Amino acid sequence: MDNFLYSYQQRINAILEKCLPDAEVVPTDLHHAMRYVVLNGGKRVRAALVYATGEALGVEIDKLDHLAAAVELVHAYSLVHDDLPAMDNDDLRRGKPTCHIAFNEAIAILTGDALQSLAFEMLATQVTAISFEKRLQIVAELAKAIGSTGMVGGQALDLAAETKSINLEELENIHLCKTGALIVASIKLGILASACYDKTTLKALEHFGCAVGLAFQVQDDIIDIESSTEVLGKQQGADRKKHKTTYASLLGIEKSKEYLIELYQKALDYLKEADLIESNLEKLAEFIIRRNH
Amino acid sequence: MDNFLYSYQQRINAILEKCLPDAEVVPTDLHHAMRYVVLNGGKRVRAALVYATGEALGVEIDKLDHLAAAVELVHAYSLVHDDLPAMDNDDLRRGKPTCHIAFNEAIAILTGDALQSLAFEMLATQVTAISFEKRLQIVAELAKAIGSTGMVGGQALDLAAETKSINLEELENIHLCKTGALIVASIKLGILASACYDKTTLKALEHFGCAVGLAFQVQDDIIDIESSTEVLGKQQGADRKKHKTTYASLLGIEKSKEYLIELYQKALDYLKEADLIESNLEKLAEFIIRRNH
Repeated sequence: MDNFLYSYQQRINAILEKCLPDAEVVPTDLHHAMRYVVLNGGKRVRAALVYATGEALGVEIDKLDHLAAAVELVHAYSLVHDDLPAMDNDDLRRGKPTCHIAFNEAIAILTGDALQSLAFEMLATQVTAISFEKRLQIVAELAKAIGSTGMVGGQALDLAAETKSINLEELENIHLCKTGALIVASIKLGILASACYDKTTLKALEHFGCAVGLAFQVQDDIIDIESSTEVLGKQQGADRKKHKTTYASLLGIEKSKEYLIELYQKALDYLKEADLIESNLEKLAEFIIRRNH
Repeated sequence: MDNFLYSYQQRINAILEKCLPDAEVVPTDLHHAMRYVVLNGGKRVRAALVYATGEALGVEIDKLDHLAAAVELVHAYSLVHDDLPAMDNDDLRRGKPTCHIAFNEAIAILTGDALQSLAFEMLATQVTAISFEKRLQIVAELAKAIGSTGMVGGQALDLAAETKSINLEELENIHLCKTGALIVASIKLGILASACYDKTTLKALEHFGCAVGLAFQVQDDIIDIESSTEVLGKQQGADRKKHKTTYASLLGIEKSKEYLIELYQKALDYLKEADLIESNLEKLAEFIIRRNH
């Protein structure tokens, strides 16, 4: 099942390697840190969603490379800032010290800032074979998805929820923003690179993105409890220690697993609606609910 | 002299007021903070540079509004992050508590992040009457100027310089990145909004931007010593307390003032070269060297 993902991963890692500034360019500590946090063996689920969506809609893969890279740069920036002491205060990420531990807090803040700018610079300069109008739509889509009512807004809601109890609806809203917005944007970038304008397909793919985004988070909560620190690459049980509200804490682990299967089914139904059921998108949805880290 | 600046300030404040999310939209603390740091009576020098450049090149002012706003959003984000405890650790900005003091550190980090995204979202969605191709160039220009070899790179170099002594050339390089890059970008955005493609004019305006950017910083160093905390709106003598290398510490205050006049003269010479000497750009250069806060 993971062969297609491995090939996407290899591809995006090579692109990211090339588009990041050389570590020897001044300021070297900043450039070292940018490479450290991006080229660290991430799962590249968001890049894979760009590739799989675009390919399912008939786009040649090299037209998707820099869209996928922009999404991964943004994802890396968000992790670096989320890990900061003032935020989630995490020391370990993918089995290695987080950026502010490996470097320092100031460099970690600047690394996230510079990665965000680099994502937009790449969309504006590196993407070719897509019309100027579509490329501006892509910039707009990504910028909105990661802004104050999207990814960053979700992180603000998540932090606020640490000091109060929230219900399932509020939890879902947090994750639809914090994780879902960038996942849906990854799919939309793949769509924007294509010549597909069919409204049913587009709506169904967007719903697929929301279902997959939530499923991703539910599985995250499950593996936070069931996996080991070694497999996770980050502290096992971290959410529980922080008394965070999670799907597992609200529903219990068994009901969370049922909910995960329900979301997976929904995702597949939306793919059928989009007539894209036998694509890599289906395999990606399966990977997301089966992963153990 | 300041009448033209006052009118630019009024104009950009109204635009910023409108383009920021309403403070009552969820997450309210984040949106409150975004408005708090942007709508705080800044001097709006960067917006004024966009307006003055564009107008000098025959662009109608309303075509420049969202370019000017994007530049001010980016400037506000950079100040919020620079003020953080892990960076310059400043408590006071424009006479009010800095963002992490008025809110908290996590909100300050997220506020900066969201303002950066909003700047790009606005360039991609709000700017009209400029071709898609030019708008993408504008996104590219701004993104590059504020990235790891521009504004953010300058801040990284500045922080690294706190623990070692640097010479005048190194100090200039820091400021050309940290302050100069966004000032030059403001001018370039005004140019990109115009129909001017004359290489002499463009080169001369870019050099004008570098001279003005450095002059801005030299004047900053002078008023850090000569103004009061009340007039400054931030801690007077803050640089000296941090043992920061400044123009004043390297050259002495008198030589710094001579250098400021020299840069001002250079700036005017470049404006003459661009045949734009009797424009608001000249008045802006004068304002920058005369300001006391």
